[in-house]
Amino acid sequence: MDLLKEIAREVQKETKVRLHRRNVERVLSAVLTERDFWKIIDLSDLPVPAVSGIIKQFIREGIIFTDDSENVLLTQKGYDLVSDLGISGLADYSCPSCEGRGYPFHIDKEFYRKFVELAKDRPDPVREYDQGAVTPETTVSRVLFLESRGDLEGKDVIVMGAEDDLTGLAVALRGKAKSVLVIDIDERLIEYDNRVFKELSIENAKAMVWDLRNPFEEDIIGKFDVFITDPPETFAAFRSFIGRGIATLKEEGCAGYFGLTLRDSSIFRWKEFQEILIGEYGTVITDIVQDFNHYMNWGYHDETRAAQIAPVKKPPADIWYRSAWYRIETLPGFKRWNEPISDEVFYLDEEGSTT
Amino acid sequence: MDLLKEIAREVQKETKVRLHRRNVERVLSAVLTERDFWKIIDLSDLPVPAVSGIIKQFIREGIIFTDDSENVLLTQKGYDLVSDLGISGLADYSCPSCEGRGYPFHIDKEFYRKFVELAKDRPDPVREYDQGAVTPETTVSRVLFLESRGDLEGKDVIVMGAEDDLTGLAVALRGKAKSVLVIDIDERLIEYDNRVFKELSIENAKAMVWDLRNPFEEDIIGKFDVFITDPPETFAAFRSFIGRGIATLKEEGCAGYFGLTLRDSSIFRWKEFQEILIGEYGTVITDIVQDFNHYMNWGYHDETRAAQIAPVKKPPADIWYRSAWYRIETLPGFKRWNEPISDEVFYLDEEGSTT
Repeated sequence: MDLLKEIAREVQKETKVRLHRRNVERVLSAVLTERDFWKIIDLSDLPVPAVSGIIKQFIREGIIFTDDSENVLLTQKGYDLVSDLGISGLADYSCPSCEGRGYPFHIDKEFYRKFVELAKDRPDPVREYDQGAVTPETTVSRVLFLESRGDLEGKDVIVMGAEDDLTGLAVALRGKAKSVLVIDIDERLIEYDNRVFKELSIENAKAMVWDLRNPFEEDIIGKFDVFITDPPETFAAFRSFIGRGIATLKEEGCAGYFGLTLRDSSIFRWKEFQEILIGEYGTVITDIVQDFNHYMNWGYHDETRAAQIAPVKKPPADIWYRSAWYRIETLPGFKRWNEPISDEVFYLDEEGSTT
Repeated sequence: MDLLKEIAREVQKETKVRLHRRNVERVLSAVLTERDFWKIIDLSDLPVPAVSGIIKQFIREGIIFTDDSENVLLTQKGYDLVSDLGISGLADYSCPSCEGRGYPFHIDKEFYRKFVELAKDRPDPVREYDQGAVTPETTVSRVLFLESRGDLEGKDVIVMGAEDDLTGLAVALRGKAKSVLVIDIDERLIEYDNRVFKELSIENAKAMVWDLRNPFEEDIIGKFDVFITDPPETFAAFRSFIGRGIATLKEEGCAGYFGLTLRDSSIFRWKEFQEILIGEYGTVITDIVQDFNHYMNWGYHDETRAAQIAPVKKPPADIWYRSAWYRIETLPGFKRWNEPISDEVFYLDEEGSTT
């Protein structure tokens, strides 16, 4: 009997998150590498409910235990198991200079410094809108990535529904785009952006409140060269953010950027997202950079399902939530998806837990 | 009349490479940024025949000219056009430390140095097998990438049909894999590897001659955790290298790595490759890192179609041929493709030119 396979099956039954044997193996590799539960999730590349369920099963089997400081550790039986199975810890050779993104945030120090100064009074993230901002280093690197790929200078850029990251502000601040439109459901962020645009006399940028569950008006459709967004990982949100993002693009050869994580969706769901992107929407994926987006911890962590199902009470001490950075391009015949969406399972479903 | 659209249409008709308006726009951005034809191809992210055809059309239109040193430059009419259309040059903020890959080759200096020493007597690339090796920095970074993703330590690794890069040698040298099997059509490379394995007493690695046009024997199918390859960009080669690579994998959750370039295949074809990966083979794409693989120039450049159709006679002076680094994962129900392939259009078709 294959214990890992059995655990995959049981945790899948319990959590409804699809799992295979190697997902469970990966959690053991993560436990060999880190002892903080939240860091273990990061390294496991699995939804929180899955890692939580797997670790609880391993605790029941006497393979993992948590000590007085709530460290997650292997028992002697656990060490014997990983040794028998030839499972090892994970190395990390990601670049210290660019934090593994390929584009160092500090390559234009003045831009970085100015953005950090402007971001310092940003509104706190709120749970209602699934907010949780990326680090300033992430936001700045996003802008440099776009610029290096020819998706910024002279372009009409729309930044949709993720302005807690202040990506729209950073794009506008960079001063290279032809125009910048920021939309977000959160009035506080829209006011923040518009105030800064006014103070800095940035005249080609504006921000407006919009709920992405609603279809765009005709004046947004087909008007942009580039969209940037960062959806929750439900199918409904994927369509509202990315389907609608594609709908804003002018023609073939335009680009879309977004984050997708494996902390709130499984690799099985990623495949389904990719099928939608390629098969249904008629786009092509040009980039997937893992762990590009680093999220700062959010004040409402204790209220999340993630905190409630965790095997430890200790909150995250450091960055643990990261997502991949996708870039797609439209091709001839691409589809402009712009249907209304009900708010059922918009922010949260069986694989999600951090809202 | 949209000139760029018209040029896209004409060059597509002439070269059979599918093109859209923004592909042509991109060539103008590239010409604004670099003056060497080969560097312009690199920045254009288009097949050589397409860039060549587009530049020749622009020369006919009086928008581009080549000077006595064979630099590719805009005429005054060309500058007026890009200014009218708001087209700008391309910035490059890629990381100087890791060369934009996210994993710096020099993070383990001893490994890097040792690989460079071992690679110094490698056989020269030959045209017969579409060879053209990546830089030692690329090969070393590939190994560090695999290791960081948990795809090296304790794993059974197969390196298929691209040993001019000496990736199999580097994986074996790293000393972390459980076993390494290198296969290549080129006897010289297989002998080189086996000699080094013997000299260094690397006992868990072996190399053997194999022509990937032929199906694998049963003893290779389903035996590996990870495959690495680097196919020519024809459909036949894609299947022989990547379809067969997937066939070697043990189960769901195993990984495959390969390079794909836009210098020998269009973005239209990338979409078709992605459809095969996701729809037909049942894998999911986890990473696409653009410009990860840097190819050293190959001695037979003058004999290639690329050299013959180029608007300049000057050979490349520096690295210009780069490819993206893909990582895929198998999911339940994945397909082990292992059919025979005839050698028609194996190395070269309408989009390819560098063989």
